[in-house]
Amino acid sequence: MQSMLWQNGALVLLDQTKLPLQEEYIECRDYRRVAEAIRRLEVRGAPAIGAAAAYGLVLGAAEILRNQADLAEELPAVADELKATRPTAVNLFWAIERMMQVFENLQQAVSAPEIVAKLEAAAIEISDKDKQVNESIARHGATLFTNPVSILTHCNAGALATVAVGTALGVIERAWREGNVSEVFADETRPLLQGARLTAVELSQAGIPVTLITDNMAAWVMKTGKVQAIIVGADRIAANGDVANKIGTYGLSVLAAEHGIPFYVAAPLSTFDFMLASGAGIPIEERNPEEVFQFAGVRSAPYGIKAFNPAFDVTPADKVTAIITEAGVIRAPYKEAIQQLAQKMKEETK
Amino acid sequence: MQSMLWQNGALVLLDQTKLPLQEEYIECRDYRRVAEAIRRLEVRGAPAIGAAAAYGLVLGAAEILRNQADLAEELPAVADELKATRPTAVNLFWAIERMMQVFENLQQAVSAPEIVAKLEAAAIEISDKDKQVNESIARHGATLFTNPVSILTHCNAGALATVAVGTALGVIERAWREGNVSEVFADETRPLLQGARLTAVELSQAGIPVTLITDNMAAWVMKTGKVQAIIVGADRIAANGDVANKIGTYGLSVLAAEHGIPFYVAAPLSTFDFMLASGAGIPIEERNPEEVFQFAGVRSAPYGIKAFNPAFDVTPADKVTAIITEAGVIRAPYKEAIQQLAQKMKEETK
Repeated sequence: MQSMLWQNGALVLLDQTKLPLQEEYIECRDYRRVAEAIRRLEVRGAPAIGAAAAYGLVLGAAEILRNQADLAEELPAVADELKATRPTAVNLFWAIERMMQVFENLQQAVSAPEIVAKLEAAAIEISDKDKQVNESIARHGATLFTNPVSILTHCNAGALATVAVGTALGVIERAWREGNVSEVFADETRPLLQGARLTAVELSQAGIPVTLITDNMAAWVMKTGKVQAIIVGADRIAANGDVANKIGTYGLSVLAAEHGIPFYVAAPLSTFDFMLASGAGIPIEERNPEEVFQFAGVRSAPYGIKAFNPAFDVTPADKVTAIITEAGVIRAPYKEAIQQLAQKMKEETK
Repeated sequence: MQSMLWQNGALVLLDQTKLPLQEEYIECRDYRRVAEAIRRLEVRGAPAIGAAAAYGLVLGAAEILRNQADLAEELPAVADELKATRPTAVNLFWAIERMMQVFENLQQAVSAPEIVAKLEAAAIEISDKDKQVNESIARHGATLFTNPVSILTHCNAGALATVAVGTALGVIERAWREGNVSEVFADETRPLLQGARLTAVELSQAGIPVTLITDNMAAWVMKTGKVQAIIVGADRIAANGDVANKIGTYGLSVLAAEHGIPFYVAAPLSTFDFMLASGAGIPIEERNPEEVFQFAGVRSAPYGIKAFNPAFDVTPADKVTAIITEAGVIRAPYKEAIQQLAQKMKEETK
């Protein structure tokens, strides 16, 4: 399954809210539809959101061009609208800023149609690079496993959360091919069940034995010795190594420490917020309480009560055993290691 | 809402699988229907199961009487069938053994119809006593709170889990009336959502502000300072203070310790397994994987994968701040405190 495809000037998104029972696609020819898809989680996962937003900006630029309006005047509003969709994953802002940088560098020199073509090329590059980056993450991550272990994962950090390959699941699949994964436990990941609906599907399609559990079983799975490692993705990593990821990740990190189980985070450099000192500065999206009141469309709670629905939490760096990036595996002290990554990234972009 | 009612020689059970959207009752005139209700969780909660099983035994005895068969010959099989319904909650075995003790003490002396009448009286006594016991638990437990705090609870340990009043929720409701509860966070408690479907209903009907969360949010709720205490019920407590309770409880106890939050267990003496040295000896029921794959008939997982579905876990005594019983609040060292409770219970039963 592929999360997105850029085809004949349209962004075709796999509607991830309909999985696993239906495989439906959304053809976006309007950047507003891309924004809506991100808000509705039809496309989700930090790297996938970044790539989709980049294509969204191309659709916005093409529309401005068709309307014979001024790109310099109107494109920033498109960028802002795309950036306003979700607050936590930094890849969204990274991708839009990268696209706008391409635009800034171009606009004096070339014609408007040429600018749109170059923006399209830049979005395709972001998208293509995501696959290569994830292959590197998988390669580095797989070196952490040298004999068959059972791994726990949370939410979905697979191909569906990216353009291809995945982050945490990319590592798991590569380690599996190398004979170093015996089985995977997948947290179902309430409220939206990305673990049950997406991760379980991706793993079983890859032929990897997967056992689904409800989120509250993870502690007992650890206590009874059923898993030897945890790998998750990330939505934003601060300069000190604090990691924002799907709600429930923080609890898993505490439980992993209690049970002496390594807790790994797999994420591309585009997920790092190098300017943010710590996780305390990461905005945590709170979503509609209705997601908590119901279960796959069936109401499970009484009316007239409140719900708390944070979509993410922050795992402090001291609970993270290692972070797997395309540039290698980093460990504490994270501040220094992340500074080096920032330097590397700066040099590459030059 | 009341979990059960003994009425005209029948046990009327509120069907808890249908809550909160439907309030349906099951009239049991056959002990086999009581056993089925326990297996299906139409009646659930350790003390409620105990009382329902006691009434089930009365229905079995009445049937043997109607068939003009021999009680001494046939009643043990009824007891065995009722005991075979669920393995973890010890109140079930406690109640059946207590009823069979009454039977053993009586059978030489009186006629069969008199025996059935005495068994009915014994079941009514178990049921009535549950209410008094829970009121004592509530009274003792409420002394732990001297200023308004926010409390987290898991699964359902309310009136619905007992004959009346509840254990953990009895404490919360009393502390609330005394002005020492600001609000309650209720874990929804997958897979069967007793927190969403039952606890949220009971608390909101009592006028207590309740905020529903998914199980994986509890750690973040603690980390962000939103709760100052945790109270749960129990299904079996070993002689060393290890506590079996709904799956997810163990994880909460680890998280509570990490955040310096007191972790309280509220349970009657009938939940103690005084002869069991530690929690390692508690049989953990594993239920149908289908419960994890779906809710209320809506499938959320792909086909062809496995699920792990333990209904309970064991929290080690060293993670339990205090256990609230009808005889008072006990703290570590639990072995000694629980020995004293056993002694007390023995003397009362004499």
